[in-house]
Amino acid sequence: MTEATTVPNDDVVVFLPGGGRASAALVPVPQAEAEVNVADLAVTRGDGVFESIGVVAGRPLELPRHLTRLAHSAELLELPAPDLAAFEAAVQTALAAHEPAPELLVKLFHSRGVETPAHTIDGPTGWVQVLSGADHTAARRDGVRVVLLDRGYRSDIAQTAPWLLQGAKTLSYALNKAALREAARRDADDVVFVSTDGVLLEGPTANVVVRHGDVFRTPRTDLGILAGTTQAAFFDTVRARGLTAEEAVLTPDDLATADAAWLCSSGRLLAPIRSLDGASLPVDAAFTAGVLAEAFGLEA
Amino acid sequence: MTEATTVPNDDVVVFLPGGGRASAALVPVPQAEAEVNVADLAVTRGDGVFESIGVVAGRPLELPRHLTRLAHSAELLELPAPDLAAFEAAVQTALAAHEPAPELLVKLFHSRGVETPAHTIDGPTGWVQVLSGADHTAARRDGVRVVLLDRGYRSDIAQTAPWLLQGAKTLSYALNKAALREAARRDADDVVFVSTDGVLLEGPTANVVVRHGDVFRTPRTDLGILAGTTQAAFFDTVRARGLTAEEAVLTPDDLATADAAWLCSSGRLLAPIRSLDGASLPVDAAFTAGVLAEAFGLEA
Repeated sequence: MTEATTVPNDDVVVFLPGGGRASAALVPVPQAEAEVNVADLAVTRGDGVFESIGVVAGRPLELPRHLTRLAHSAELLELPAPDLAAFEAAVQTALAAHEPAPELLVKLFHSRGVETPAHTIDGPTGWVQVLSGADHTAARRDGVRVVLLDRGYRSDIAQTAPWLLQGAKTLSYALNKAALREAARRDADDVVFVSTDGVLLEGPTANVVVRHGDVFRTPRTDLGILAGTTQAAFFDTVRARGLTAEEAVLTPDDLATADAAWLCSSGRLLAPIRSLDGASLPVDAAFTAGVLAEAFGLEA
Repeated sequence: MTEATTVPNDDVVVFLPGGGRASAALVPVPQAEAEVNVADLAVTRGDGVFESIGVVAGRPLELPRHLTRLAHSAELLELPAPDLAAFEAAVQTALAAHEPAPELLVKLFHSRGVETPAHTIDGPTGWVQVLSGADHTAARRDGVRVVLLDRGYRSDIAQTAPWLLQGAKTLSYALNKAALREAARRDADDVVFVSTDGVLLEGPTANVVVRHGDVFRTPRTDLGILAGTTQAAFFDTVRARGLTAEEAVLTPDDLATADAAWLCSSGRLLAPIRSLDGASLPVDAAFTAGVLAEAFGLEA
């Protein structure tokens, strides 16, 4: 491994060994020079899994939970198991090479690998990217406008049709991007999906938490949704304060009647939901700021 | 443009102009040296569209239909419109550079582009790849074993929830690969998806055609499925023979009771379905061979 060099004003990529690339493994390269083969199944089929991890003051948040989820997603796709120790080392190398910032985002990618002309697969391919995240100050303080969109599936889909890969964080994310464009068309910032049998699910890139009194609830992970890492850290903090936090089967009405509600994700962390399909929801700015400080070390 | 050089024993890639890559545009490169940036949205989100085109004796089959479908898929994803003339030129350049073979496969890729550290998108990215296809002789002659799998959506999903991108040929194909693994687990070769309201849809990479007497039918394209290019050429030939070919709303029973049925796709072209969930279906080898010759110039 070469000595890590800070790459100013750019994002940093670190490749793991393997996957038939030209770049040397575990050496930080600027994003502009980091390439994967066009025949990598990540490119041609979205056939891989990923994680996005928030970084506050140089510290990746909830890293063990993210590594566990990466391995779980890989299992659902029957990918080779990711080398979690190598991913962890790559995260540290990439963060050390990136220009420091109060907040960053680190992404982990694990693809099935490159389809060769001989119809074999040279893989898996793995890499880590450190990015300067967007500025989430306003969303965390003022909240986001959310619309409900049909997810098209029943809430038991992960049990009845596992080949649809619900609950895996795959690189096949085009529909999540399309849902966010639909939200923008409806003059909103984000989405919460609803199942065809009327169950509240998750956002395209976030989990949802609703508060009624001293009870905080989030949709159960057997409903074909991702296990939330940021939501889990939020719940740790809620429980440490002596409040109740639980998984449940929720409906859109539970969200519409909430005393407060949040979208939880790795980059934005906690964004209060300030409106649902155009109707206002209460926002508790002081409580949110307190949890952001306590759970994630984020100063207001 | 440099003069095209044949690249023996390898596959050939030709990039279109744009998309922030190092490789020069419209110059054939071996697949092993053809790379896209890790921050291309094709890689990170499966956020792009593609086409696979069969090539027989150097001639790409149904090229205009494929180009039309590429543009339609791009529209559904709100991508920049693909430069179809540039794609057509890239196809010819790539084919001229590839070692000739009785059959090849050419793939067209059109991605939203590269997300830069400044949170802008440098795109679109486009490229063409020529591959040596697999040997489909046995599948075309003897047929394939098919299982029915739940697609999880209602048949009206493309109308009610367009953000789910049904009917677009996106790079988010991980679930199609997962469905094929499920078929293998069930000792089958391929899949036909069924909607939650019991309508026959399509395969993960193929359209389905059923024959009853002199009537050939395929599922309607408003059922959230792709318009089939190989199926369309098949229907042209059927109609030229004075037989009836039509789009319809079909059920699994229509497939189970068929006099003959096929999966239609660009590489394999026509594969008779020889069993459905383990029950035998009739295979008309002579008829299939006749259509393969007439519609696609494929000698037995």
